[in-house]
Amino acid sequence: MIMLGENKFGFFDSALKNMRGLWKSIASSEYDAERALSRPDLPEDDAVRLRQQMQACLESRGTEVKARARAAALGRAYLALDGKGRERFLRVLADEFDIDSDALLVAVEAFRAARNAEDRWQAEYQLRRTLKAPRVRLLTLFNALPEGVKFLVDMRAELIVLARHDPSLRALEHDLRDLLISWFDIDFLELRRITWDGSPAAVLEKLMVYEAVHAIESWDDLKNRLDSDRRCFAYFHPRMPAEPLIFVEVALMNGLAGNIQDLLDENAPVMDPEKADTAIFYSISNAQKGLAGISFGNFLIKRVAETLSGELKGLKNFATLSPLPGFRAWLDLVIEEEGAVLLSANEKTALEKIGGDDMSTDGDAGMHPLGRILARADWAERPAACDALKTPLLRLAARYLIEEKGKNGRALDPVAHFHLSNGARMERLNWLGDRSQKGLEQSAGIMINYAYRLSDVESNHDAYSRDDRVAAAGAVRALLKT
Amino acid sequence: MIMLGENKFGFFDSALKNMRGLWKSIASSEYDAERALSRPDLPEDDAVRLRQQMQACLESRGTEVKARARAAALGRAYLALDGKGRERFLRVLADEFDIDSDALLVAVEAFRAARNAEDRWQAEYQLRRTLKAPRVRLLTLFNALPEGVKFLVDMRAELIVLARHDPSLRALEHDLRDLLISWFDIDFLELRRITWDGSPAAVLEKLMVYEAVHAIESWDDLKNRLDSDRRCFAYFHPRMPAEPLIFVEVALMNGLAGNIQDLLDENAPVMDPEKADTAIFYSISNAQKGLAGISFGNFLIKRVAETLSGELKGLKNFATLSPLPGFRAWLDLVIEEEGAVLLSANEKTALEKIGGDDMSTDGDAGMHPLGRILARADWAERPAACDALKTPLLRLAARYLIEEKGKNGRALDPVAHFHLSNGARMERLNWLGDRSQKGLEQSAGIMINYAYRLSDVESNHDAYSRDDRVAAAGAVRALLKT
Amino acid sequence: MIMLGENKFGFFDSALKNMRGLWKSIASSEYDAERALSRPDLPEDDAVRLRQQMQACLESRGTEVKARARAAALGRAYLALDGKGRERFLRVLADEFDIDSDALLVAVEAFRAARNAEDRWQAEYQLRRTLKAPRVRLLTLFNALPEGVKFLVDMRAELIVLARHDPSLRALEHDLRDLLISWFDIDFLELRRITWDGSPAAVLEKLMVYEAVHAIESWDDLKNRLDSDRRCFAYFHPRMPAEPLIFVEVALMNGLAGNIQDLLDENAPVMDPEKADTAIFYSISNAQKGLAGISFGNFLIKRVAETLSGELKGLKNFATLSPLPGFRAWLDLVIEEEGAVLLSANEKTALEKIGGDDMSTDGDAGMHPLGRILARADWAERPAACDALKTPLLRLAARYLIEEKGKNGRALDPVAHFHLSNGARMERLNWLGDRSQKGLEQSAGIMINYAYRLSDVESNHDAYSRDDRVAAAGAVRALLKT
Amino acid sequence: MIMLGENKFGFFDSALKNMRGLWKSIASSEYDAERALSRPDLPEDDAVRLRQQMQACLESRGTEVKARARAAALGRAYLALDGKGRERFLRVLADEFDIDSDALLVAVEAFRAARNAEDRWQAEYQLRRTLKAPRVRLLTLFNALPEGVKFLVDMRAELIVLARHDPSLRALEHDLRDLLISWFDIDFLELRRITWDGSPAAVLEKLMVYEAVHAIESWDDLKNRLDSDRRCFAYFHPRMPAEPLIFVEVALMNGLAGNIQDLLDENAPVMDPEKADTAIFYSISNAQKGLAGISFGNFLIKRVAETLSGELKGLKNFATLSPLPGFRAWLDLVIEEEGAVLLSANEKTALEKIGGDDMSTDGDAGMHPLGRILARADWAERPAACDALKTPLLRLAARYLIEEKGKNGRALDPVAHFHLSNGARMERLNWLGDRSQKGLEQSAGIMINYAYRLSDVESNHDAYSRDDRVAAAGAVRALLKT
Repeated sequence: MIMLGENKFGFFDSALKNMRGLWKSIASSEYDAERALSRPDLPEDDAVRLRQQMQACLESRGTEVKARARAAALGRAYLALDGKGRERFLRVLADEFDIDSDALLVAVEAFRAARNAEDRWQAEYQLRRTLKAPRVRLLTLFNALPEGVKFLVDMRAELIVLARHDPSLRALEHDLRDLLISWFDIDFLELRRITWDGSPAAVLEKLMVYEAVHAIESWDDLKNRLDSDRRCFAYFHPRMPAEPLIFVEVALMNGLAGNIQDLLDENAPVMDPEKADTAIFYSISNAQKGLAGISFGNFLIKRVAETLSGELKGLKNFATLSPLPGFRAWLDLVIEEEGAVLLSANEKTALEKIGGDDMSTDGDAGMHPLGRILARADWAERPAACDALKTPLLRLAARYLIEEKGKNGRALDPVAHFHLSNGARMERLNWLGDRSQKGLEQSAGIMINYAYRLSDVESNHDAYSRDDRVAAAGAVRALLKT
Repeated sequence: MIMLGENKFGFFDSALKNMRGLWKSIASSEYDAERALSRPDLPEDDAVRLRQQMQACLESRGTEVKARARAAALGRAYLALDGKGRERFLRVLADEFDIDSDALLVAVEAFRAARNAEDRWQAEYQLRRTLKAPRVRLLTLFNALPEGVKFLVDMRAELIVLARHDPSLRALEHDLRDLLISWFDIDFLELRRITWDGSPAAVLEKLMVYEAVHAIESWDDLKNRLDSDRRCFAYFHPRMPAEPLIFVEVALMNGLAGNIQDLLDENAPVMDPEKADTAIFYSISNAQKGLAGISFGNFLIKRVAETLSGELKGLKNFATLSPLPGFRAWLDLVIEEEGAVLLSANEKTALEKIGGDDMSTDGDAGMHPLGRILARADWAERPAACDALKTPLLRLAARYLIEEKGKNGRALDPVAHFHLSNGARMERLNWLGDRSQKGLEQSAGIMINYAYRLSDVESNHDAYSRDDRVAAAGAVRALLKT
Repeated sequence: MIMLGENKFGFFDSALKNMRGLWKSIASSEYDAERALSRPDLPEDDAVRLRQQMQACLESRGTEVKARARAAALGRAYLALDGKGRERFLRVLADEFDIDSDALLVAVEAFRAARNAEDRWQAEYQLRRTLKAPRVRLLTLFNALPEGVKFLVDMRAELIVLARHDPSLRALEHDLRDLLISWFDIDFLELRRITWDGSPAAVLEKLMVYEAVHAIESWDDLKNRLDSDRRCFAYFHPRMPAEPLIFVEVALMNGLAGNIQDLLDENAPVMDPEKADTAIFYSISNAQKGLAGISFGNFLIKRVAETLSGELKGLKNFATLSPLPGFRAWLDLVIEEEGAVLLSANEKTALEKIGGDDMSTDGDAGMHPLGRILARADWAERPAACDALKTPLLRLAARYLIEEKGKNGRALDPVAHFHLSNGARMERLNWLGDRSQKGLEQSAGIMINYAYRLSDVESNHDAYSRDDRVAAAGAVRALLKT
Repeated sequence: MIMLGENKFGFFDSALKNMRGLWKSIASSEYDAERALSRPDLPEDDAVRLRQQMQACLESRGTEVKARARAAALGRAYLALDGKGRERFLRVLADEFDIDSDALLVAVEAFRAARNAEDRWQAEYQLRRTLKAPRVRLLTLFNALPEGVKFLVDMRAELIVLARHDPSLRALEHDLRDLLISWFDIDFLELRRITWDGSPAAVLEKLMVYEAVHAIESWDDLKNRLDSDRRCFAYFHPRMPAEPLIFVEVALMNGLAGNIQDLLDENAPVMDPEKADTAIFYSISNAQKGLAGISFGNFLIKRVAETLSGELKGLKNFATLSPLPGFRAWLDLVIEEEGAVLLSANEKTALEKIGGDDMSTDGDAGMHPLGRILARADWAERPAACDALKTPLLRLAARYLIEEKGKNGRALDPVAHFHLSNGARMERLNWLGDRSQKGLEQSAGIMINYAYRLSDVESNHDAYSRDDRVAAAGAVRALLKT
């Protein structure tokens, strides 16, 4: 069987183009929506013409084939616009193809007047119809573009920004989100392993762009992350085969990893994956801003854990090595609010000794000793500072992670919230686990392992989501009381 | 890259199963929804337990992974039920997970009370939310079944029948239809060529089952339809890779085909496809009852025509060889209503001569001569009868096709309506084009070619859809006046 | 990456043809070797022209691309010939492009004269060159045909027959065999599972043609052999993707299978393959006559056993259910030679009672009672006959299998020899295991299980190949003494 | 159908490994040939053990499956050796598994004694058998290694170096070459397009390693060479799917390219490939040293030209942009031999003016003015030098290319010989076409376009190969006389 629907063979692009040449001209006069543009900022006259094209799509002038051709031309026109033009384009879509308010009012009244089941059913049906804005069909038709799904994902990314303070764009954004939720159902996605030997350079290049946790420095760094004792998996949509949606990087090891620089060291020896007992998920990145709010992470972690279990019989433990991205910001607040009682007398003395000793600088007199030392860019390289900081910072980190809550009782730290929702447990805090600038600035150099244990995942999830209870190993809880 | 999302490699089924073994047990206690059934007709107690499971899915007790596992178990339970049980299952879904009427009323009132844009937007948003029944999410979760999409398509096929006289099931059916419309967007589908050398036996077997126009008699008949001067194309959904959605069978020829038995003759010589100037679309079948109302035919014909144009440079004409499925039934009515004026004097004489001559039978005295002869099973084999019938039947067929209208001005004949909507033109009527029993019973043996001409498709469509004007060749129109 | 070397996409055939159109004409004048033929029996004039074309290929007139184009034209010419013409074609190839006898004699003399290592090396090199007939390069060039490898395999099949009594054709056949041995190295072959859901109809159809042990009666029979408790595997060459080389059919069961009709019963219940403990290899067929003498069976059985072990953890036993194809013919000889002492007195009495009782026929008076009963087509349906035959026939079958030897000490039965060479053990004889006509005529209805046990395979092989010792279970050996 | 023969799915490696686990142990005791090594330089005791293993393979102790397992173990042992050890390993193979000299002598005598056709045939057969060294079978068995073909290709690369002065290793090398010639028949190879979007990083990385003409500086340089107006194609062997054998880089342009730096400029605008009329083959690299003497270039150029013709209808011209790698070395000789008469008086004056003017350096007094200027690393950046050099250097380059011959009348320049053999014509010389250090050092900065014209390829080839006639455009020939 030959698949024509999806042209996987870039090489035949032009062959297919030729094939389609004959019938393409069905809609040829309309193909030029983008040529109708006089300027990239979509002046009023252009906007009028675009609106007419949109109208033509929706009124089913011409066959369905032609409607799709028109929509594709509109899509290309959008791509040719600049930021201002795109905003105007979206506003046309949002305002002129919105639901019909009058019809909605009629439907609302009809619903109130309905007296029996059949009438109510009819009224409901009318309400539902009326509430479906014509622009939804237009959005769907953009799928006719060769990269239609990616087009809509990217359009939503732009729309999210624009919609923040604009109810009518927000409604359009919601329509688009609903469409994408339906299309990006997890069971339509493909989990693929990404490898140096098998994955196209174009996909690998995107990992470099999208990596959000520990930046990939070079092709050599990337190759090292795809070595035989590493794994990388991503979800893909069948119509966006070169665009990872979310991906995870995994290190196979013995025991928990405690330090990200060691883990990423290109000169570290490669281990035999058959002998590993632990898989460390050290980086999980969402790649598509336009899919914000559509979550795949929970599935990704579990599918990858299953897959690795099947491949490597020695694996017993699945855990992350994660940052505490909000810790330092929270700490600054806490120092301000509770500075006086934050440290024991001994801790304070020790820190002041360091601060007063070799690290004091002009102008920081009067600062809290914790803040004063952390303000130094090089504290993590000074053994004495590290010694003095270790106990109080780990205690505060444990408090931040376990006890501090955001809205709805969620863990304040977003990474903690993600893993706790998935049923993971806080397993171990790692002092100086990330000495990079970003690691120091966000997490004060501390990293945490979240462990995924089969037998506990569901109960952890339930305890967290119902009762805000945080699963944490004894050793982590113990830090609260040091 | 390895695709794990879609298990294309039947062989690794069990390997994957093993891989998933570890984490599968996350939801194991729920996996047994189908074991909870005591009888296939779903007695009340079973129904209560099912409802609880449905509830659990929706309330997000447990992780998302677990919700999907629960839904899959519910799906398997559905498959284990008999007709009665399934109806009850669907009714639970329809009734217990319907929209909240009270909340809807509140939303309706809020909408009426809204005074400014922001309020109205909020009220609309609430209306929309309230109108989305919880069962929609449940339907979506069934996608977690290994053949989840097919499951839902088949469920809808059953639901369509049950919903005919039942508003609440109809609402569920509409929910399901909306979901499938979104998932079966034409640009998600794959057009594949079906071949003897490349297509799996399981797919070919399904053509035999689904062929709706000219039944495929045997594997030899099928092989003949896939010979080098034939083509067969079908649309597939990526998640239903072994299930054609719609397919078309094409014969490559010189000139228009006029007779289906000749075309399907297994002993006819095979022609060099490079030398063909005409592609005859002699059979188009929808394969999935559960996709009723979701149309792919317009796209199929044009994509196949494009594809063939690209492959075979000699092709100049694209036409169908089609039945007139409603002709005989209409003719019987017309004979009854207009019997006296239906024939010219000469025609009447000629027909009566035949009828009185060698074909008269007891008991048909008083019948209209047309009806009397057509009632004979063997008329098509009697040259004299054929001669006498040819002119009047072709005239009546032309009238039936061109002039007779159903609702909304549509052509009365459904096949005519389909092709006219697509922009085709009635090109030629073929006397004795189908001598099969079905051909005689439905179409009085007449077949028609609908021609697809690139340059006219859009204008034909517009003339038909706006003004009910039927595109027909002069020779076809001329038959009206014989 | 796009593979152009192998055109897997029948659909693009003509596209590729077009692509190649431009450069094809490089060799166009030569493309017509087959048009040069005036008659399919290759009269002398035609043969002269062919010889010139062959010469042109070998002399590298024109580029390498052109030499291949010429060879392809010669191949097409061969295909256009009838039996007589092909024999003449092959004779031209064999005789006119043989080694140069004079040059060989010179090389032989040079070798005798060589006195030091370097001279000897040069002489050897010359000998080797001289012994390589020019026709070998011509054979290789036929690979330029789109199905070049299959072309050569089929040519050898024809050649084997013709070469039986013709030394010069035999030399050509040996050249071709050496080429095919190199190309069909086992590690170039692909083991594929054949399934109803995944294998093209064209491949399945070939199983029906090539099945050599238990004929496949219909598509339904075939589908049953590919059901979920069955497996079928075949080796393929990458350049003959639609042609199985050898295939095995396997039934998954509990315990050994004893009866082939039961095993192939289309109405038998399907078992859960996960619960099977035994894989029965009930049919192994070589599919290509042109690969005679190039053996894949040993690898096939072991690779399939490995593959099944990996897939189905419950499998503990791997065994065949095999015929004794030479048993009846051998038995007739033995009856003739040893008739008097073949049976015990009791056996004789019992058999004579049957023979004299209800089965006697005129004209068989004086026949040995064993022969007389076996001559009856329906003996296997008569319980009394079966009872009387069971003990003596099983004893004789055990003797035939274990004790009778052909040349070089090999087991007389060819199937026994194959499995014993592979290291299998005779596990069980099955009385009335094959009641088909073929089964009765060849094996007197008896079937045997050869068991493949991992731990014994190599020692069984060694004992058999060095010392002609046959591995047999105690119960089989015990039959010798009944 | 599932392919098991070739494991394309790195991911399932370990799954397959497990599957094979059961039967693998058939040969387990032998799997350890490489563990038997005590040192990487293969001391005598180790060599003895290896020889025994080799012997065991050849004597068919154990089943065929075991013979392959033994050979694979031997192959792994080879890989574990250092240079010295490998040489010893190869010598064991060459010397101990050579042909049997005594048997050969017997066969030679038998041949001389043969008197009739049948005897002669038998004698020939014996000669051929005797001349086939046992090591050939051993070499073939190495194919059992997972990367067996690559193993043998690399072994030959090493052997070629060692065999230069060693007849017995040369014989082994010849055996290996014959095997590889058979396996690497052009019609077994796959032509694939290499793209940024579709080709694995591992393959792209190899292009960077193997590029032999214009070094690829970085991933960005590589990406630029795979942009939409570039093409790259390579031949692959099915059993070496990640290893290009030979590859060509192509630029799509309007008109001939004259300068390689312009062509490779990463900042140059990208052209629409549909509008190109010329394909410039600017780099062709052989990638496997172990395939020396097995040529694919002729096929590669023509297949790529065909493929591009099919894809891009606008292409009219196919030409190379090539260096003159031997020009400068030849020029130095010519200056020495013919220095006095090499230049016209005007040329000499002009060059001396330059040389004496701003470029003179101490110590080069007495040098020929041509040599003196060319010796300056920066001459190509000095307009005056370039002006003075242009005419004489282009004349000498034309002479070098057209008139200078090596052995057997071949063009002296190897690149010229390659393209002339393929039927190309010298189309244009490009002054300062390659200003890179390598370009100046080898080709004095001159580049040449060889044009491939369909209609002339075969006649050009014939004229060159039979009569040593060089096809060159009038403008190129005209340079001879300036």
